[in-house]
Amino acid sequence: MSPVGAALWRSLRAHQVYGANTDVGKTIVSTILCNAVQRQKSQNQVAFLKPVSTGPLEDADDRHIQRHAVGTLTECLYQFDEPVSPHIAAQQKNFTVPHDNELVASVHKTLSGWAGNGVNFALVETAGGVHSPGPNGNSQADLYRPLRLPIVLIADSRLGGISSSISAYESLLLRGYDVHSVLLFRDEYYKNHEYLLSYFQKKSIPLLSLPTPPSRPPMEDADALARDEEAMATYYGRVAQGSDIAGLLEQLTAKNAERIDRLESMADRAHTTIWYPFTQHHGMEAKDITPIDSAYDDYFQTYVRSDEVSQSDSSLRATFDGSASWWTQGLGHGNPDLALSAAYAAGRYGHVMFPGNIHEPALSLAELLVTSAGNPRLKKVFYTDNGSTGMEVAVKMGLRAACDRYGWNASQEQISILGLKGSYHGDTIGVMDCSEPSTFNQKVEWYRGRGYWFDFPQVKMSGGVWRVEMPEDLKEPLGADLEFPSLDSVFDVEERVQSAAGERYREYIRNTIHDLVHRQGMKFGSLIMEPIILGAGGMLFCDPLFQRCLADVVRGYPELFGTNAAKSAQGSTPESGSSWSGLPVIFDEVFTGLYRLGRRSAASFLHVDSDIAVNAKLLTGGLLPLCTTMASNEIFQAFSSPEKSDALLHGHSYTAHAVGCQVAVESLQKMMRMEQSGSWDGYREDWQPTLPASESSNDNLATVWSVWSHQLVHDLSHAETVDGVFAIGTVLSLSLKDMQGGGYTSTAARGLQQKLSTSGGKFNVHSRVLGNVLYLMSSVTSRPDALRSIEGLLREALL
Amino acid sequence: MSPVGAALWRSLRAHQVYGANTDVGKTIVSTILCNAVQRQKSQNQVAFLKPVSTGPLEDADDRHIQRHAVGTLTECLYQFDEPVSPHIAAQQKNFTVPHDNELVASVHKTLSGWAGNGVNFALVETAGGVHSPGPNGNSQADLYRPLRLPIVLIADSRLGGISSSISAYESLLLRGYDVHSVLLFRDEYYKNHEYLLSYFQKKSIPLLSLPTPPSRPPMEDADALARDEEAMATYYGRVAQGSDIAGLLEQLTAKNAERIDRLESMADRAHTTIWYPFTQHHGMEAKDITPIDSAYDDYFQTYVRSDEVSQSDSSLRATFDGSASWWTQGLGHGNPDLALSAAYAAGRYGHVMFPGNIHEPALSLAELLVTSAGNPRLKKVFYTDNGSTGMEVAVKMGLRAACDRYGWNASQEQISILGLKGSYHGDTIGVMDCSEPSTFNQKVEWYRGRGYWFDFPQVKMSGGVWRVEMPEDLKEPLGADLEFPSLDSVFDVEERVQSAAGERYREYIRNTIHDLVHRQGMKFGSLIMEPIILGAGGMLFCDPLFQRCLADVVRGYPELFGTNAAKSAQGSTPESGSSWSGLPVIFDEVFTGLYRLGRRSAASFLHVDSDIAVNAKLLTGGLLPLCTTMASNEIFQAFSSPEKSDALLHGHSYTAHAVGCQVAVESLQKMMRMEQSGSWDGYREDWQPTLPASESSNDNLATVWSVWSHQLVHDLSHAETVDGVFAIGTVLSLSLKDMQGGGYTSTAARGLQQKLSTSGGKFNVHSRVLGNVLYLMSSVTSRPDALRSIEGLLREALL
Repeated sequence: MSPVGAALWRSLRAHQVYGANTDVGKTIVSTILCNAVQRQKSQNQVAFLKPVSTGPLEDADDRHIQRHAVGTLTECLYQFDEPVSPHIAAQQKNFTVPHDNELVASVHKTLSGWAGNGVNFALVETAGGVHSPGPNGNSQADLYRPLRLPIVLIADSRLGGISSSISAYESLLLRGYDVHSVLLFRDEYYKNHEYLLSYFQKKSIPLLSLPTPPSRPPMEDADALARDEEAMATYYGRVAQGSDIAGLLEQLTAKNAERIDRLESMADRAHTTIWYPFTQHHGMEAKDITPIDSAYDDYFQTYVRSDEVSQSDSSLRATFDGSASWWTQGLGHGNPDLALSAAYAAGRYGHVMFPGNIHEPALSLAELLVTSAGNPRLKKVFYTDNGSTGMEVAVKMGLRAACDRYGWNASQEQISILGLKGSYHGDTIGVMDCSEPSTFNQKVEWYRGRGYWFDFPQVKMSGGVWRVEMPEDLKEPLGADLEFPSLDSVFDVEERVQSAAGERYREYIRNTIHDLVHRQGMKFGSLIMEPIILGAGGMLFCDPLFQRCLADVVRGYPELFGTNAAKSAQGSTPESGSSWSGLPVIFDEVFTGLYRLGRRSAASFLHVDSDIAVNAKLLTGGLLPLCTTMASNEIFQAFSSPEKSDALLHGHSYTAHAVGCQVAVESLQKMMRMEQSGSWDGYREDWQPTLPASESSNDNLATVWSVWSHQLVHDLSHAETVDGVFAIGTVLSLSLKDMQGGGYTSTAARGLQQKLSTSGGKFNVHSRVLGNVLYLMSSVTSRPDALRSIEGLLREALL
Repeated sequence: MSPVGAALWRSLRAHQVYGANTDVGKTIVSTILCNAVQRQKSQNQVAFLKPVSTGPLEDADDRHIQRHAVGTLTECLYQFDEPVSPHIAAQQKNFTVPHDNELVASVHKTLSGWAGNGVNFALVETAGGVHSPGPNGNSQADLYRPLRLPIVLIADSRLGGISSSISAYESLLLRGYDVHSVLLFRDEYYKNHEYLLSYFQKKSIPLLSLPTPPSRPPMEDADALARDEEAMATYYGRVAQGSDIAGLLEQLTAKNAERIDRLESMADRAHTTIWYPFTQHHGMEAKDITPIDSAYDDYFQTYVRSDEVSQSDSSLRATFDGSASWWTQGLGHGNPDLALSAAYAAGRYGHVMFPGNIHEPALSLAELLVTSAGNPRLKKVFYTDNGSTGMEVAVKMGLRAACDRYGWNASQEQISILGLKGSYHGDTIGVMDCSEPSTFNQKVEWYRGRGYWFDFPQVKMSGGVWRVEMPEDLKEPLGADLEFPSLDSVFDVEERVQSAAGERYREYIRNTIHDLVHRQGMKFGSLIMEPIILGAGGMLFCDPLFQRCLADVVRGYPELFGTNAAKSAQGSTPESGSSWSGLPVIFDEVFTGLYRLGRRSAASFLHVDSDIAVNAKLLTGGLLPLCTTMASNEIFQAFSSPEKSDALLHGHSYTAHAVGCQVAVESLQKMMRMEQSGSWDGYREDWQPTLPASESSNDNLATVWSVWSHQLVHDLSHAETVDGVFAIGTVLSLSLKDMQGGGYTSTAARGLQQKLSTSGGKFNVHSRVLGNVLYLMSSVTSRPDALRSIEGLLREALL
């Protein structure tokens, strides 16, 4: 089903009413507000929605509103007679429980209808307290998040009500709700309203206290009911006279208007003040900037300018976050568990200075990374703030180890790195130098490429066939392309390493390095690779066999690199499992690691244990910057000396900040549990290679798979405008035919991007392009139905 | 008064009992637990502490325990007869309300006494719900934080209790509490215990449900009381038989043991797994690593190994965070407002991809920075993750603007920067290149210093006199030192700029640059300075007049740098307030900005508006990594072109992450409000210069001041081992006499550092040294009494 957009209309002020506890008077306050709005202006049209109601029908909240706020439109979506929590009521009735999304969509639909029919004030009243479960058993505060309705919180005036009101407020804040006002009854003995007034004043939230309503008599007969009605009517009359509801309504109206005005002006203001990363501002206009009101799961709630919506359209639209927010997103936007983890660490530590100290989040994360890496070499964890700084550290580590072993003086001679063309490792100048000259760096004044970068064979599906396309230098003996029956077979590296292609790769690599070192006099200090997919370089899918051979040659022929190689290698042989040989091998897993490609580590596709590995992006599940550089003990030892200044001279102020580490522990554990519990087996089944009948078996799940359907990839590979396509893990990449030659500056994919971004239906797709490549990326928790509807848009656009 | 250490004993398992609401049965559950512990082992000694009790004495909770858990030691610190919230009770009694710290210290003292006397199980029962106010009106959940007692949460079994229990739990988590178990009464109708069992199981928190206690009869006579007593006794007997309290106690014991075991083993495990920043691991032992259990305000709660504490000593000790956690800390560790801000943004956005989008936290922060900068040139905000990356961006900006103006091709010629000796701008290789060769960078393989760095006059107090010490090159005409009657007079830059020193500075600078450019052929692309204090270089206090003159010369003589200078300057004159002249001036305010030196911007001391300014560290109040690089429109325009690749090629995945921006908005606003409301006027008064009688006036507050007392600086400047001392803003710096010549590798300050770290009293001081310099740094919210007690330790050590 379609994602739900957030609920925001210019003409309709809609609020959600939450209670600090049950029985705090939500419906009474709602009645007061509805009446007051009607009093404000005779043509005001007011509505009241109770999505889920429990308790006897004659007692239902919408009935109360009908009786005491005459003229108010009312609606109740689900009514249960039993006066218990909806999740129990729903069970007892043996009722087909609506999916949370369905419930939220119904609320949205009801409000949209009202907005279209001229209703200008609406309340959506929840059941019980903020965390009281909905029919599915999920907390209301969680399930209504997508709507992003501003909150009217009814506080608790009873003894203990200060505490429950503040806690309820905090639970709402934790989920990113905006509380627009607080109301409660006055109790002159406990005086909660006084305390809370001062509390909420500090947060600029208006609080209004109201007279206490008459207590309810037991409903023994019709008389009692009538008496109660009368008492309430009198009460409502009195409140209307004596309280400053009008003032509160003005504040609510002002806050609503302010929200819309801010959203409407945000693009202009951003255009004035923000200098965007990797963005050419020349010719950029304010309208090219999208205001994001909020986000949930895989969706942004993006603002649509007032001149582009009709009266019944919400100004906010669900937009699929098709770049997984620059490849960071893993567990969904606004994930309450991550928010709570962040808050816990912030509350327990803040940031505590790291050198010489240790705290639980940093230690837990380091140990979890080491034990889960699947690489016995990696024993030490160094923290930094992002992939770029983590790669700077990796380079400092690798170069030092090499210089140390080979006896080079790096201040007097240039030490280079070996890599692949199209690699990208970050934006700080040191790691820019690890990439060959390209659009990304050639205009950076201090950039000086320091290395050699191999051209390499690339994997893609075209015309329904998985192919490995050879670069010029490798075409001769191997022919143009290799073809494979399945993606699994491309990844059968242990088998392929024996093939002619493997032999040719190794020979080519060895000869090239020999030439660079012995004829051109280059010195190399590290081999750096992004395993499998080179992300920023254009979603380049490297033949895993080539990367494997590169590592094999570098490690198998240490004499290529320096004269001490043999001697050093003797002491600790590669077989020992921890010693590096030839060059330190650095894997930049900032993009490819932590389940982005479906596995904890993309290195496992190659069966190569790197000496240094860098993780970031998904490390925190998509919430905060944090990076780890892991290294072997041998690399670590290269910095050990009695000289203080031989230490690894790196360390940011917020190194190993507790908030990031805590969130990362939570994220990593969640993702590992998903893997262990087979959450992705459905995808693995979809990608199961079609084997000859003799070899097939029912439990044969693909070892290489994607959340994007195999059939889609197959179909798109036949599309006229598509040059090649692949999917792996959460990544789908489409290389479009470009008459102008491709590359970062190409515009070939813009058309498709444009189509997806204004698909016009119920939601949009936000995507990023890299030249002629358009990619889509999900989180690891994306729901298959959401992905299938996006696939539908792609099919529409391309087939 | 002394800070409070956290409460953790090996022999005493102490828990704090919080209720999800009032009247959920905290004391009944406490009674059950106390009884159960006594049943476990006859020699178990159990105690119960009610720090604050309200309601009639005969009804008090400790009395209940005495009656029903016979043998339990009980104590109540503050008893109020009125059955209302303690903050109201305290007011009504006209009672001298204990300071929160006093209350917490009393709890700690009571528990310590019990631990020393063989008590092995203790409960500290709070009043009402988690946020019910203490006697001072502050939430209990806030005020008891320093103790870091693990929590026994009593959940609510009534209708609505699912919500209030989860919200209470979240409020505790937000403050970094560890909830070790949840107990509640069984209500078979509402079944909260079933829902909550499954909820807390997912969080690995054991939950035990108990039979519902008898309802309490109205206490009309002695008989009713007796009947209640009897009914309760029967109830307790029944619970003892039927519930698995023993199992729960075992889990509590195990969690307590696990906490201690983890703390005890953390140093060893960190020693195995963590690669520390800027740390030489050679010779480092596990015992050199300090486990931090938690933190609050300016204090770490650090773990003391079991062999170093007596039975009555808590294993956790308050340790003053004397480096403000590498200069980041501003608003205190574990600040609940910052934690809540972080949680709000995490819940509302997660991280949303920035280019082409805008969200409220990023926009609000950018606008707040621009309007509060006090520098009309700075109009554009570029986000990165830390000071180092922010300075990389600044350098890319500055160099591009210069190359653009002067027509240089930076890929073919070396463009250098102008700076000061001892500058430090971060650990990524690009900005390392902005510093002259030093211990910090010379062993980094790819480091190549690209610049010229001026030696400069330094400010310090020695022998009771403020002096500006000249470097060799400036000594000749000016004499050795300049002397000043006050720090304010050193900073009277507008006056001093006319002096002989000003003239000499300018001449020296101009001649030097002329020589570098015209004789040595260097090309310069930017002037980079840390205004006033060069932090990592060794807390070097630069004569503000020298920095002012440097900027004046660079801007006043553009022809020094390139031939197009005059032409460019014509179009937009420096007077226009936005055009740069000579070189783009970059201020690295990562350390010095945002009130670290007492002012929003340290540039205001110089009256120089930089073209580019970088902020980080204090930006988030000391919670999370975030950095902003601000620039003028003219710098911004240097990247504008129809060529996409002319854009500023920089951008990290988590650019402008919502959590960081939201926290930064909150932090910056808080600090600005403190300044506006005169929070620091006491310090300014203390630093008021002694003027001649004719000029003095009562409201004459110092313009340059420190949280450290002027008298302390004065006194220490006379100490035998002190070479010089200064304080400004939150920074106190002591330069110690070193026979071996000083510098980063010096060990002169180690002795003093050692003394402070084991001062033996009630708390320790954690400090950092830079060679022969020991500095102390507070947050902007540090309490004067805390600072004065640290000053006492310094006096003891040095005078």
